[in-house]
Amino acid sequence: MKVIESVKELRAELNGKSDVGFVPTMGALHRGHKALIDRAREENRTVVLSIFVNPTQFLKGEDLSKYPRTFEADREIALRSGVDYIFFPNIDEIYGSSDEVQILAPKVGGYILEGSRRPDHFNGVLQVVLKLFNIVQPHRAYFGKKDAQQLSLIQQMVDNLFIPIDIVPIDIVRDSDGLALSSRNRYLSDSERLLAGTIPKGIEEASRLVIAGERDVKTLVRRVNEIYKDLDVEYIEIVNSKFNSISEIEIGNSILLVAVKIGTTRLIDNIWF
Amino acid sequence: MKVIESVKELRAELNGKSDVGFVPTMGALHRGHKALIDRAREENRTVVLSIFVNPTQFLKGEDLSKYPRTFEADREIALRSGVDYIFFPNIDEIYGSSDEVQILAPKVGGYILEGSRRPDHFNGVLQVVLKLFNIVQPHRAYFGKKDAQQLSLIQQMVDNLFIPIDIVPIDIVRDSDGLALSSRNRYLSDSERLLAGTIPKGIEEASRLVIAGERDVKTLVRRVNEIYKDLDVEYIEIVNSKFNSISEIEIGNSILLVAVKIGTTRLIDNIWF
Repeated sequence: MKVIESVKELRAELNGKSDVGFVPTMGALHRGHKALIDRAREENRTVVLSIFVNPTQFLKGEDLSKYPRTFEADREIALRSGVDYIFFPNIDEIYGSSDEVQILAPKVGGYILEGSRRPDHFNGVLQVVLKLFNIVQPHRAYFGKKDAQQLSLIQQMVDNLFIPIDIVPIDIVRDSDGLALSSRNRYLSDSERLLAGTIPKGIEEASRLVIAGERDVKTLVRRVNEIYKDLDVEYIEIVNSKFNSISEIEIGNSILLVAVKIGTTRLIDNIWF
Repeated sequence: MKVIESVKELRAELNGKSDVGFVPTMGALHRGHKALIDRAREENRTVVLSIFVNPTQFLKGEDLSKYPRTFEADREIALRSGVDYIFFPNIDEIYGSSDEVQILAPKVGGYILEGSRRPDHFNGVLQVVLKLFNIVQPHRAYFGKKDAQQLSLIQQMVDNLFIPIDIVPIDIVRDSDGLALSSRNRYLSDSERLLAGTIPKGIEEASRLVIAGERDVKTLVRRVNEIYKDLDVEYIEIVNSKFNSISEIEIGNSILLVAVKIGTTRLIDNIWF
């Protein structure tokens, strides 16, 4: 496994490689990332993992400076998982100027839910993902379903811009109590971590109701809201796969998304119906 | 030579081709385009010409519907010039939705001169060029220096997004009286065409003055303005290659740009010093 910091060197290494799987991350790797890497390892001859805490997707006042940086631990996980290259650039390698071409997310999907709470967040995500795609030129790229809205927007960008890359969505990995793994979980105190266990409870209950035949979006949201009565809820919403509002669950094309604040830590979760 | 309308079919044809030159156009081909094709023919094993009148780069009230469409004549020129593939998609093939990922030009360069007269014009240009780049995946792409600001912005996009394509700028091709060739020249009446011959006269005079040692931007602009006294001038400006304002010519890094209205037809021209 090689750790590479420069675009030029990475391109030289990958030149002529016909089967490259790519896992873009911001580091602070956990078993959720490991699931992405494992799948990339199964499906590709060469696996590239990028670790880059992208400044343009953090808004003012967000946790850019305190976002966890754990390179040595990340390197160990990557090595044990069979990654071939870690791409670990500094900011100047990725952003050459403060006045660059920008990417704007589609209006539907880009500015609701996460997009309305974090304006320009997804524009920054799409910008860095497009840069990384062009640098690595992979055949497949792996993204977790936990960031469902991000995943949907990246798939739309790939479709709209005819980017010749297969986007592979990977299921959410959960802790023993059901909490979706996230690099931000490490911000939680013990008592907050206990409280965070309520988040998957609401999702599981909605899932049970849908399996039992409930299709009414308002009923489902109300029930999750009841379970979250002790939480600081930002949103509980059900949309279709293009992030349009719906009033009835359409099996195979509906997604329940929640965002909750536990202390100062913002956590998101979701489930597909 | 094949004419191809679908992205899928073009990709199947180009699959595995290692040396592709690409000339994106809006059709209405003239000797300026022919110079691009000739250079692409010299430098690449496979030459792809696209003909697509891109709606997103026309503003409301501009000449989208009356923009010249001369496919049969274009096909003849392409055939005689040794083009391998004409990519000739319809609008639905390129734009799948009205709510797509957008590209925003850099602030410097994107919103002055042409950008200030035609807001969002360059955003539409960059969007379609990025789509076409991803569809064709060429090794080299050819653009005329006549659209100098467009050329600069495309180069910036390629740099910012790490697009693995060489951008090859091609010199302006001029008519016998010096008028830069443009698809819009065919809008001119005989008397307007005669008047348009004044545009290169101003540029030639500025060039003579610079060669003679003049470096003061104000003096040069004033002199061109005098020559253009009978024209409806939109702008006469001198900037550096990144489109920042300058007060002194810096040889090798300065460009004089002019935009003039002849009747209802807007014409642009430029020269590098």
